[in-house]
Amino acid sequence: MNKSILFNKRPVGKPTLDDFMFSSAAIPVPEAGHILLKTLYVSVDPYLRGRMNDTKSYIPPFELGKPIQSGIIAEVTDSKNDLFKKGDFVSGMLEWKEFQLSDGSGLNKVDASVTPLSTYLGLLGMTGLTAYLGLTEIGAPKPGETLVVSGAAGAVGSVVGQIGRIKGCRVVGITGSDEKSAVLKSKFGFDEAINYKTTHDLREAVRMACPDGVDIYFDNVGGEISDAVLANINKHARLPVCGAISLYNDTRIRLAPRIQPILLTKSATMRGFIVNDFSAKFPAAMKQLALWLKEGKLTHAETIVEGFENIPQAFLDLFDGKNSGKMIVKVRED
Amino acid sequence: MNKSILFNKRPVGKPTLDDFMFSSAAIPVPEAGHILLKTLYVSVDPYLRGRMNDTKSYIPPFELGKPIQSGIIAEVTDSKNDLFKKGDFVSGMLEWKEFQLSDGSGLNKVDASVTPLSTYLGLLGMTGLTAYLGLTEIGAPKPGETLVVSGAAGAVGSVVGQIGRIKGCRVVGITGSDEKSAVLKSKFGFDEAINYKTTHDLREAVRMACPDGVDIYFDNVGGEISDAVLANINKHARLPVCGAISLYNDTRIRLAPRIQPILLTKSATMRGFIVNDFSAKFPAAMKQLALWLKEGKLTHAETIVEGFENIPQAFLDLFDGKNSGKMIVKVRED
Repeated sequence: MNKSILFNKRPVGKPTLDDFMFSSAAIPVPEAGHILLKTLYVSVDPYLRGRMNDTKSYIPPFELGKPIQSGIIAEVTDSKNDLFKKGDFVSGMLEWKEFQLSDGSGLNKVDASVTPLSTYLGLLGMTGLTAYLGLTEIGAPKPGETLVVSGAAGAVGSVVGQIGRIKGCRVVGITGSDEKSAVLKSKFGFDEAINYKTTHDLREAVRMACPDGVDIYFDNVGGEISDAVLANINKHARLPVCGAISLYNDTRIRLAPRIQPILLTKSATMRGFIVNDFSAKFPAAMKQLALWLKEGKLTHAETIVEGFENIPQAFLDLFDGKNSGKMIVKVRED
Repeated sequence: MNKSILFNKRPVGKPTLDDFMFSSAAIPVPEAGHILLKTLYVSVDPYLRGRMNDTKSYIPPFELGKPIQSGIIAEVTDSKNDLFKKGDFVSGMLEWKEFQLSDGSGLNKVDASVTPLSTYLGLLGMTGLTAYLGLTEIGAPKPGETLVVSGAAGAVGSVVGQIGRIKGCRVVGITGSDEKSAVLKSKFGFDEAINYKTTHDLREAVRMACPDGVDIYFDNVGGEISDAVLANINKHARLPVCGAISLYNDTRIRLAPRIQPILLTKSATMRGFIVNDFSAKFPAAMKQLALWLKEGKLTHAETIVEGFENIPQAFLDLFDGKNSGKMIVKVRED
């Protein structure tokens, strides 16, 4: 049988397991031009929360009763399409199903001999591209500058910090546990790490960790953490806004000190983005990331959960910060 | 005698006449290398309010007991400096004095035969440069896009709107009276004008005035007016923050809906600036502005107040929106 995970109801506030529903059907058979895909790895990402709201955003909302979609690595198990053969591995935005048909559009072949397949959801996938392009295109890091990253132990944050180091920045990460703080420094080479949950005065902690001020703030979280960093920015600071995980589950509009006077007195730039804003630069970025990975300059970090039925819980765990690096559900061995 | 206006006390909230103090001294005599300047026109600008606070900003605060400074057009009445001769007109950041000495540093000669001298404080001065460079460098207007300008009848706003029209944008101005609204359309060529003081639902008014959404928001005011525009921005909107006149007199930190989710869902860029951020582009910008002025594509707008003793009141009047276009105090005939 072929299990699917459907969108059952729109969450108000924090999502729960009830928002998802399992269903079962026969494994389909491809017609001419189509391929059958077997799901191997599923990416769960904070931005999916946005698609669960019935509001216009950068991508359309999920439809009730239809399968959830996310980045997936799959194996071609049957092909009636000349561009794909049985045994090929592909990555793409696919549905949360064990097996599914595709006409091949939007799929990229990936090479299991170069790196573990899950890497194509992380460092060599949207995660790596988001980190690299957000940091380089908006952050524009220069040697000797100070880069602060929030959500630093997350999928994107842990890559941003490493690239910041490669670019010659002093890198300070903000995260939610002492364990993650230690990992940021020992595994990812961050210069300093701050555990916001045990820090009494975060604004002061950022000031202490950044004696020369903050030139770049790569924001994954929004919220009060970002206010504390904003209080420490330098003139001409660049502030890529990649995510706002601390706000995604809000049921009311949250207030903050007005941003205009801060940006004005510092001649600072704050820019929201999604990775597709930079799609023209994907090939060059991918090449650079692959090279750094090969050279050992980038370390890959994953939290792997096993089993198709655990996809919803893995997604929910993101909002409790249970992942370190990229959260991936392994559905089957490749 | 030679009158000066000194900074008497730091205002808390809205400035008053008591914050200024007049003093008198003999007219000084230049030594070798120096010139004597007679003040003709004085620019009063909202940003001066920031220098009255004892806080680090993009320019140092005014010192108590010392003269206030702003953009001034002066005539050289005595010269012991080979670079200047008696009768030359200059513009520069000078002190609020009827007469003052200078070694010539930071002064630009201006030509009274090309345009009235006061133009060098407005369209061909910092005002014009701020409007042109903020709009083109950050706003990056494209034909057919929609540009919204707040503080639209002010010195910078009225120029921004006109340049937006030259660049082929639909231009909507937000201002504080029906009279100013009418002027925006009849004199400066704005497509639409909104009087925020008589508009019940500003967010809806902006939506109606911008049926295709807002691509560029040139923000001179900060505050709730900006919130209403932000609710209507398009994907990839650009938001130059030029001023925040509605917040300058605040005595407490003002709250607003968090900006990060707005910028994120729209892939929008908000950037604070001062004109000096673009100083490398001043010569080219000045050339363009002078050409448009000559071609009659830009209309100059000034509110002229007469008399040295009226400088402080003219400054205070800015915060009540009593000016239309550039507020200038004429101290003496040129």
